[in-house]
Amino acid sequence: MREVRQERAIATRQHIVDSAAAVFDSDGFAGASLGRIIKLAGTTRGALHFHFPTKEDLATAVLDEHNRRMSAVVEGISHNDASALEQMVRISETTARQIDQDPIVRAGTRLLMELTYTGTPPISYGVWIEACEDLVRRAIDDGDIVASVSPQAVAYLVISGLAGIQMVSSVLSRRSDLDRRVDEMWNVLLLGLVPADRQWKVAELLGARARGLV
Amino acid sequence: MREVRQERAIATRQHIVDSAAAVFDSDGFAGASLGRIIKLAGTTRGALHFHFPTKEDLATAVLDEHNRRMSAVVEGISHNDASALEQMVRISETTARQIDQDPIVRAGTRLLMELTYTGTPPISYGVWIEACEDLVRRAIDDGDIVASVSPQAVAYLVISGLAGIQMVSSVLSRRSDLDRRVDEMWNVLLLGLVPADRQWKVAELLGARARGLV
Repeated sequence: MREVRQERAIATRQHIVDSAAAVFDSDGFAGASLGRIIKLAGTTRGALHFHFPTKEDLATAVLDEHNRRMSAVVEGISHNDASALEQMVRISETTARQIDQDPIVRAGTRLLMELTYTGTPPISYGVWIEACEDLVRRAIDDGDIVASVSPQAVAYLVISGLAGIQMVSSVLSRRSDLDRRVDEMWNVLLLGLVPADRQWKVAELLGARARGLV
Repeated sequence: MREVRQERAIATRQHIVDSAAAVFDSDGFAGASLGRIIKLAGTTRGALHFHFPTKEDLATAVLDEHNRRMSAVVEGISHNDASALEQMVRISETTARQIDQDPIVRAGTRLLMELTYTGTPPISYGVWIEACEDLVRRAIDDGDIVASVSPQAVAYLVISGLAGIQMVSSVLSRRSDLDRRVDEMWNVLLLGLVPADRQWKVAELLGARARGLV
Protein backbone atom coordinates (compact mmCIF):
# COMPACT_ATOMS: atom_id res chain seq x y z
CA MET A 1 0.00 0.00 0.00
CA ARG A 2 2.82 2.37 0.91
CA GLU A 3 4.65 1.50 -2.35
CA VAL A 4 1.53 2.28 -4.36
CA ARG A 5 1.23 5.66 -2.64
CA GLN A 6 4.92 6.32 -3.26
CA GLU A 7 4.66 5.38 -6.93
CA ARG A 8 1.66 7.60 -7.28
CA ALA A 9 3.55 10.50 -5.66
CA ILE A 10 6.46 10.01 -8.08
CA ALA A 11 4.08 9.93 -11.04
CA THR A 12 2.32 13.10 -9.82
CA ARG A 13 5.65 14.85 -9.35
CA GLN A 14 6.80 13.94 -12.87
CA HIS A 15 3.46 15.03 -14.28
CA ILE A 16 3.79 18.40 -12.55
CA VAL A 17 7.35 18.83 -13.91
CA ASP A 18 6.17 18.04 -17.46
CA SER A 19 3.29 20.49 -17.15
CA ALA A 20 5.52 23.18 -15.67
CA ALA A 21 7.95 22.68 -18.57
CA ALA A 22 5.15 23.20 -21.09
CA VAL A 23 4.05 26.42 -19.37
CA PHE A 24 7.62 27.76 -18.86
CA ASP A 25 8.29 26.99 -22.53
CA SER A 26 5.34 29.03 -23.74
CA ASP A 27 5.13 31.79 -21.08
CA GLY A 28 8.63 32.10 -19.61
CA PHE A 29 9.54 32.11 -15.93
CA ALA A 30 8.01 35.46 -15.03
CA GLY A 31 4.88 34.85 -17.10
CA ALA A 32 4.22 31.28 -15.96
CA SER A 33 1.03 31.01 -13.88
CA LEU A 34 0.88 28.34 -11.18
CA GLY A 35 -2.86 28.07 -11.85
CA ARG A 36 -2.18 27.08 -15.45
CA ILE A 37 0.39 24.50 -14.39
CA ILE A 38 -2.06 22.99 -11.85
CA LYS A 39 -4.80 22.85 -14.48
CA LEU A 40 -2.53 21.28 -17.10
CA ALA A 41 -1.21 18.71 -14.60
CA GLY A 42 -4.76 17.89 -13.46
CA THR A 43 -3.63 18.20 -9.86
CA THR A 44 -4.42 20.36 -6.84
CA ARG A 45 -2.71 23.42 -5.38
CA GLY A 46 -1.98 21.33 -2.27
CA ALA A 47 -0.17 18.63 -4.27
CA LEU A 48 1.80 21.24 -6.19
CA HIS A 49 2.94 22.97 -2.98
CA PHE A 50 3.77 19.63 -1.37
CA HIS A 51 6.24 18.81 -4.16
CA PHE A 52 7.36 22.35 -5.05
CA PRO A 53 6.91 25.05 -2.37
CA THR A 54 7.96 27.87 -4.77
CA LYS A 55 8.03 28.66 -8.49
CA GLU A 56 11.85 28.66 -8.25
CA ASP A 57 11.68 25.02 -7.04
CA LEU A 58 9.65 24.13 -10.12
CA ALA A 59 12.14 25.87 -12.41
CA THR A 60 15.01 24.08 -10.67
CA ALA A 61 13.29 20.71 -11.19
CA VAL A 62 12.85 21.44 -14.91
CA LEU A 63 16.49 22.57 -15.20
CA ASP A 64 17.69 19.44 -13.37
CA GLU A 65 15.77 17.23 -15.77
CA HIS A 66 17.08 19.30 -18.69
CA ASN A 67 20.65 18.79 -17.46
CA ARG A 68 20.09 15.04 -17.06
CA ARG A 69 18.83 14.74 -20.64
CA MET A 70 21.66 16.84 -22.06
CA SER A 71 24.21 14.76 -20.12
CA ALA A 72 22.62 11.56 -21.42
CA VAL A 73 23.19 12.77 -24.99
CA VAL A 74 26.84 13.56 -24.25
CA GLU A 75 27.35 10.20 -22.52
CA GLY A 76 25.71 8.29 -25.34
CA ILE A 77 27.90 9.88 -28.00
CA SER A 78 31.09 9.71 -25.88
CA HIS A 79 30.77 5.96 -25.47
CA ASN A 80 30.91 5.06 -29.11
CA ASP A 81 34.22 5.05 -30.95
CA ALA A 82 33.82 8.32 -32.84
CA SER A 83 36.82 10.69 -32.89
CA ALA A 84 36.82 13.67 -30.54
CA LEU A 85 36.19 16.00 -33.51
CA GLU A 86 33.20 13.95 -34.64
CA GLN A 87 31.85 13.85 -31.05
CA MET A 88 31.92 17.66 -30.84
CA VAL A 89 29.92 18.01 -34.02
CA ARG A 90 27.44 15.22 -33.20
CA ILE A 91 26.78 16.41 -29.65
CA SER A 92 25.97 19.91 -30.86
CA GLU A 93 23.73 18.60 -33.64
CA THR A 94 21.86 16.26 -31.32
CA THR A 95 21.35 18.85 -28.60
CA ALA A 96 20.07 21.33 -31.20
CA ARG A 97 17.56 18.72 -32.32
CA GLN A 98 16.57 18.11 -28.70
CA ILE A 99 15.95 21.81 -28.10
CA ASP A 100 13.63 21.65 -31.05
CA GLN A 101 11.77 18.48 -30.09
CA ASP A 102 11.94 17.79 -26.34
CA PRO A 103 9.62 20.07 -24.29
CA ILE A 104 11.76 19.69 -21.15
CA VAL A 105 14.94 20.68 -22.99
CA ARG A 106 13.10 23.52 -24.72
CA ALA A 107 11.81 24.86 -21.39
CA GLY A 108 15.22 24.35 -19.75
CA THR A 109 16.93 26.32 -22.51
CA ARG A 110 14.51 29.18 -22.09
CA LEU A 111 14.84 29.15 -18.29
CA LEU A 112 18.63 29.04 -18.55
CA MET A 113 18.52 32.19 -20.65
CA GLU A 114 15.95 33.98 -18.51
CA LEU A 115 17.65 33.13 -15.24
CA THR A 116 21.06 34.11 -16.58
CA TYR A 117 20.93 37.36 -14.69
CA THR A 118 19.60 36.15 -11.35
CA GLY A 119 21.74 35.89 -8.24
CA THR A 120 22.51 32.20 -8.64
CA PRO A 121 23.40 31.74 -12.28
CA PRO A 122 23.03 28.21 -13.60
CA ILE A 123 26.51 26.75 -13.82
CA SER A 124 25.81 24.76 -16.98
CA TYR A 125 27.82 26.99 -19.34
CA GLY A 126 31.01 26.49 -17.36
CA VAL A 127 30.55 22.71 -17.29
CA TRP A 128 29.82 22.56 -21.03
CA ILE A 129 32.85 24.71 -21.88
CA GLU A 130 35.10 22.42 -19.83
CA ALA A 131 33.70 19.29 -21.49
CA CYS A 132 34.16 20.86 -24.93
CA GLU A 133 37.69 22.01 -24.06
CA ASP A 134 38.56 18.41 -23.25
CA LEU A 135 37.30 17.29 -26.68
CA VAL A 136 39.29 20.06 -28.41
CA ARG A 137 42.48 18.94 -26.63
CA ARG A 138 41.87 15.36 -27.73
CA ALA A 139 41.17 16.47 -31.31
CA ILE A 140 44.49 18.39 -31.27
CA ASP A 141 46.24 15.23 -30.04
CA ASP A 142 44.58 13.32 -32.88
CA GLY A 143 45.89 15.88 -35.38
CA ASP A 144 42.30 16.80 -36.36
CA ILE A 145 42.58 20.35 -35.01
CA VAL A 146 45.60 22.62 -35.52
CA ALA A 147 47.84 22.90 -32.47
CA SER A 148 48.15 26.68 -32.73
CA VAL A 149 44.71 27.42 -31.21
CA SER A 150 43.84 27.77 -27.53
CA PRO A 151 41.52 24.84 -26.61
CA GLN A 152 39.77 27.05 -24.08
CA ALA A 153 39.18 29.84 -26.61
CA VAL A 154 37.72 27.35 -29.11
CA ALA A 155 35.49 25.72 -26.47
CA TYR A 156 34.24 29.10 -25.26
CA LEU A 157 33.39 30.09 -28.82
CA VAL A 158 31.62 26.79 -29.61
CA ILE A 159 29.40 26.93 -26.51
CA SER A 160 28.70 30.67 -26.86
CA GLY A 161 28.05 30.21 -30.56
CA LEU A 162 25.54 27.43 -29.91
CA ALA A 163 23.82 29.49 -27.19
CA GLY A 164 23.70 32.52 -29.47
CA ILE A 165 22.47 30.60 -32.51
CA GLN A 166 19.72 29.06 -30.41
CA MET A 167 18.67 32.53 -29.24
CA VAL A 168 18.83 34.26 -32.63
CA SER A 169 17.13 31.35 -34.37
CA SER A 170 14.33 31.44 -31.76
CA VAL A 171 13.71 35.11 -32.51
CA LEU A 172 14.05 35.07 -36.27
CA SER A 173 12.56 31.73 -37.27
CA ARG A 174 11.12 30.07 -34.15
CA ARG A 175 14.04 27.64 -34.45
CA SER A 176 12.93 26.29 -37.83
CA ASP A 177 16.48 26.74 -39.22
CA LEU A 178 18.36 25.74 -36.03
CA ASP A 179 19.82 22.53 -37.53
CA ARG A 180 21.09 24.33 -40.61
CA ARG A 181 22.60 27.19 -38.61
CA VAL A 182 24.52 24.75 -36.38
CA ASP A 183 25.87 23.01 -39.49
CA GLU A 184 26.88 26.34 -40.98
CA MET A 185 28.69 27.22 -37.75
CA TRP A 186 30.78 24.06 -38.04
CA ASN A 187 31.43 24.69 -41.72
CA VAL A 188 32.93 28.10 -40.95
CA LEU A 189 34.76 27.06 -37.76
CA LEU A 190 36.31 23.88 -39.13
CA LEU A 191 37.64 25.72 -42.17
CA GLY A 192 40.32 27.19 -39.92
CA LEU A 193 40.50 24.59 -37.15
CA VAL A 194 41.11 21.46 -39.23
CA PRO A 195 44.50 21.16 -41.00
CA ALA A 196 44.40 21.29 -44.81
CA ASP A 197 45.28 17.60 -45.19
CA ARG A 198 42.32 16.60 -42.98
CA GLN A 199 39.67 18.77 -44.60
CA TRP A 200 38.31 15.65 -46.31
CA LYS A 201 37.13 14.58 -42.85
CA VAL A 202 35.07 17.76 -42.54
CA ALA A 203 33.36 17.09 -45.86
CA GLU A 204 32.61 13.59 -44.59
CA LEU A 205 31.39 14.76 -41.17
CA LEU A 206 29.11 17.52 -42.37
CA GLY A 207 28.28 15.79 -45.64
CA ALA A 208 26.95 12.69 -43.87
CA ARG A 209 24.49 14.94 -42.14
CA ALA A 210 23.45 16.68 -45.36
CA ARG A 211 22.82 13.27 -46.92
CA GLY A 212 20.56 12.35 -43.98
CA LEU A 213 22.91 9.61 -42.74
CA VAL A 214 22.99 10.76 -39.11
CA MET B 1 7.79 80.33 -21.39
CA ARG B 2 6.44 77.52 -23.56
CA GLU B 3 9.99 76.67 -24.72
CA VAL B 4 11.20 76.44 -21.15
CA ARG B 5 8.37 74.06 -20.30
CA GLN B 6 9.14 71.99 -23.39
CA GLU B 7 12.84 71.83 -22.58
CA ARG B 8 12.02 70.79 -19.06
CA ALA B 9 9.71 68.03 -20.36
CA ILE B 10 12.47 66.73 -22.66
CA ALA B 11 14.96 66.73 -19.80
CA THR B 12 12.50 64.92 -17.52
CA ARG B 13 11.80 62.32 -20.22
CA GLN B 14 15.53 61.69 -20.73
CA HIS B 15 16.06 61.48 -16.99
CA ILE B 16 13.27 58.89 -16.72
CA VAL B 17 14.78 56.85 -19.58
CA ASP B 18 18.22 56.90 -17.91
CA SER B 19 16.72 55.84 -14.57
CA ALA B 20 14.65 53.11 -16.21
CA ALA B 21 17.80 51.82 -17.94
CA ALA B 22 19.61 51.59 -14.61
CA VAL B 23 16.72 49.64 -13.04
CA PHE B 24 16.19 47.34 -16.08
CA ASP B 25 19.93 46.68 -16.07
CA SER B 26 19.99 45.56 -12.46
CA ASP B 27 16.51 43.99 -12.07
CA GLY B 28 15.45 42.91 -15.57
CA PHE B 29 12.14 43.70 -17.27
CA ALA B 30 9.91 41.53 -15.06
CA GLY B 31 11.70 42.56 -11.85
CA ALA B 32 11.84 46.30 -12.56
CA SER B 33 9.65 48.29 -10.16
CA LEU B 34 8.09 51.52 -11.42
CA GLY B 35 8.36 52.88 -7.87
CA ARG B 36 12.14 52.45 -7.97
CA ILE B 37 12.37 54.15 -11.35
CA ILE B 38 10.28 57.10 -10.10
CA LYS B 39 12.45 57.42 -6.99
CA LEU B 40 15.71 57.22 -8.94
CA ALA B 41 14.46 59.77 -11.50
CA GLY B 42 13.31 62.08 -8.70
CA THR B 43 9.99 62.50 -10.51
CA THR B 44 6.33 61.79 -9.85
CA ARG B 45 4.08 58.90 -10.87
CA GLY B 46 2.04 61.44 -12.87
CA ALA B 47 5.06 62.58 -14.88
CA LEU B 48 6.12 58.98 -15.50
CA HIS B 49 2.68 58.02 -16.80
CA PHE B 50 2.49 61.18 -18.91
CA HIS B 51 5.66 60.19 -20.81
CA PHE B 52 5.32 56.39 -20.60
CA PRO B 53 1.83 54.95 -20.01
CA THR B 54 3.16 51.35 -19.60
CA LYS B 55 6.33 49.52 -18.58
CA GLU B 56 6.55 48.25 -22.18
CA ASP B 57 6.70 51.87 -23.37
CA LEU B 58 9.64 52.47 -21.03
CA ALA B 59 11.43 49.36 -22.31
CA THR B 60 10.80 50.45 -25.91
CA ALA B 61 12.28 53.88 -25.18
CA VAL B 62 15.42 52.28 -23.69
CA LEU B 63 15.70 49.90 -26.67
CA ASP B 64 15.28 52.78 -29.13
CA GLU B 65 18.07 54.73 -27.45
CA HIS B 66 20.18 51.53 -27.38
CA ASN B 67 19.64 51.10 -31.12
CA ARG B 68 20.55 54.73 -31.80
CA ARG B 69 23.82 54.39 -29.89
CA MET B 70 24.72 51.09 -31.57
CA SER B 71 23.97 52.61 -35.00
CA ALA B 72 26.14 55.62 -34.17
CA VAL B 73 29.08 53.26 -33.52
CA VAL B 74 28.53 51.48 -36.82
CA GLU B 75 28.18 54.78 -38.70
CA GLY B 76 31.30 56.22 -37.11
CA ILE B 77 33.45 53.23 -38.05
CA SER B 78 31.90 52.87 -41.54
CA HIS B 79 32.82 56.43 -42.46
CA ASN B 80 36.54 56.10 -42.03
CA ASP B 81 38.64 54.38 -44.69
CA ALA B 82 39.16 51.06 -42.91
CA SER B 83 38.71 47.87 -44.98
CA ALA B 84 35.46 45.91 -44.62
CA LEU B 85 37.31 43.21 -42.66
CA GLU B 86 38.74 45.76 -40.24
CA GLN B 87 35.31 47.39 -39.85
CA MET B 88 33.75 44.06 -38.82
CA VAL B 89 36.34 43.53 -36.13
CA ARG B 90 36.31 47.12 -34.87
CA ILE B 91 32.50 47.35 -34.72
CA SER B 92 32.28 44.18 -32.63
CA GLU B 93 35.05 45.31 -30.30
CA THR B 94 33.54 48.75 -29.81
CA THR B 95 30.04 47.46 -29.18
CA ALA B 96 31.40 44.95 -26.66
CA ARG B 97 33.08 47.81 -24.85
CA GLN B 98 29.83 49.80 -24.96
CA ILE B 99 27.87 46.92 -23.43
CA ASP B 100 30.39 47.00 -20.65
CA GLN B 101 30.42 50.76 -20.07
CA ASP B 102 27.21 52.42 -21.30
CA PRO B 103 24.24 51.85 -18.94
CA ILE B 104 21.71 52.36 -21.76
CA VAL B 105 23.43 49.80 -24.00
CA ARG B 106 23.79 47.41 -21.07
CA ALA B 107 20.08 47.68 -20.23
CA GLY B 108 19.13 47.40 -23.91
CA THR B 109 21.19 44.23 -24.29
CA ARG B 110 19.48 42.68 -21.30
CA LEU B 111 16.01 43.72 -22.50
CA LEU B 112 16.75 42.39 -25.97
CA MET B 113 17.54 39.01 -24.46
CA GLU B 114 14.62 38.98 -22.04
CA LEU B 115 12.09 40.13 -24.62
CA THR B 116 13.39 37.61 -27.17
CA TYR B 117 10.47 35.36 -26.49
CA THR B 118 7.64 37.90 -26.42
CA GLY B 119 5.14 38.29 -29.21
CA THR B 120 6.93 41.18 -30.91
CA PRO B 121 10.57 40.16 -31.06
CA PRO B 122 13.00 43.05 -31.43
CA ILE B 123 14.13 43.04 -35.04
CA SER B 124 17.70 44.10 -34.24
CA TYR B 125 19.29 40.68 -34.89
CA GLY B 126 18.01 40.59 -38.47
CA VAL B 127 19.24 44.12 -39.17
CA TRP B 128 22.67 43.39 -37.69
CA ILE B 129 23.03 40.16 -39.66
CA GLU B 130 22.21 41.98 -42.90
CA ALA B 131 24.71 44.75 -42.15
CA CYS B 132 27.39 42.19 -41.32
CA GLU B 133 26.58 40.16 -44.44
CA ASP B 134 27.22 43.27 -46.49
CA LEU B 135 30.64 43.70 -44.88
CA VAL B 136 31.48 40.02 -45.50
CA ARG B 137 30.62 40.40 -49.20
CA ARG B 138 32.85 43.47 -49.44
CA ALA B 139 35.68 41.65 -47.65
CA ILE B 140 35.33 38.79 -50.17
CA ASP B 141 35.53 41.33 -53.00
CA ASP B 142 38.66 42.78 -51.38
CA GLY B 143 40.20 39.30 -51.27
CA ASP B 144 40.37 39.49 -47.44
CA ILE B 145 37.87 36.61 -46.96
CA VAL B 146 37.89 33.39 -48.96
CA ALA B 147 35.21 33.25 -51.65
CA SER B 148 34.14 29.71 -50.75
CA VAL B 149 32.07 30.74 -47.71
CA SER B 150 28.45 31.83 -47.64
CA PRO B 151 28.37 35.52 -46.57
CA GLN B 152 25.03 34.94 -44.88
CA ALA B 153 26.32 31.95 -42.90
CA VAL B 154 29.35 33.93 -41.72
CA ALA B 155 27.24 36.94 -40.76
CA TYR B 156 24.74 34.76 -38.88
CA LEU B 157 27.60 33.13 -36.96
CA VAL B 158 29.31 36.44 -36.13
CA ILE B 159 26.13 38.03 -34.75
CA SER B 160 25.03 34.87 -32.91
CA GLY B 161 28.55 34.41 -31.59
CA LEU B 162 28.66 37.96 -30.25
CA ALA B 163 25.20 37.57 -28.67
CA GLY B 164 26.20 34.24 -27.12
CA ILE B 165 29.57 35.49 -25.85
CA GLN B 166 27.85 38.46 -24.25
CA MET B 167 25.40 36.11 -22.53
CA VAL B 168 27.94 33.51 -21.36
CA SER B 169 30.40 36.18 -20.25
CA SER B 170 27.62 37.88 -18.24
CA VAL B 171 26.93 34.63 -16.40
CA LEU B 172 30.47 33.42 -15.85
CA SER B 173 32.41 36.62 -15.21
CA ARG B 174 29.96 39.53 -15.12
CA ARG B 175 31.46 40.55 -18.48
CA SER B 176 34.95 41.13 -17.05
CA ASP B 177 36.47 39.05 -19.89
CA LEU B 178 34.09 40.21 -22.66
CA ASP B 179 36.80 42.09 -24.63
CA ARG B 180 39.15 39.14 -24.56
CA ARG B 181 36.45 36.65 -25.59
CA VAL B 182 35.49 38.80 -28.59
CA ASP B 183 39.16 38.92 -29.64
CA GLU B 184 39.45 35.16 -29.25
CA MET B 185 36.36 34.71 -31.41
CA TRP B 186 38.00 36.66 -34.22
CA ASN B 187 41.26 34.79 -33.77
CA VAL B 188 39.50 31.47 -34.34
CA LEU B 189 37.11 32.67 -37.08
CA LEU B 190 39.71 34.53 -39.15
CA LEU B 191 42.02 31.52 -39.12
CA GLY B 192 39.71 29.93 -41.69
CA LEU B 193 38.09 32.98 -43.27
CA VAL B 194 41.21 34.91 -44.29
CA PRO B 195 43.36 33.43 -47.13
CA ALA B 196 46.83 32.22 -46.09
CA ASP B 197 48.60 35.05 -47.92
CA ARG B 198 46.57 37.66 -46.02
CA GLN B 199 46.98 36.21 -42.52
CA TRP B 200 49.53 38.96 -41.80
CA LYS B 201 46.57 41.35 -41.83
CA VAL B 202 44.91 39.37 -39.04
CA ALA B 203 48.02 39.60 -36.89
CA GLU B 204 48.03 43.34 -37.52
CA LEU B 205 44.29 43.75 -36.83
CA LEU B 206 44.14 41.77 -33.61
CA GLY B 207 47.68 42.63 -32.59
CA ALA B 208 47.02 46.38 -32.70
CA ARG B 209 44.34 45.81 -30.15
CA ALA B 210 46.56 43.70 -27.91
CA ARG B 211 49.15 46.49 -27.99
CA GLY B 212 46.50 48.97 -26.86
CA LEU B 213 46.58 50.91 -30.15
CA VAL B 214 42.81 50.87 -30.70
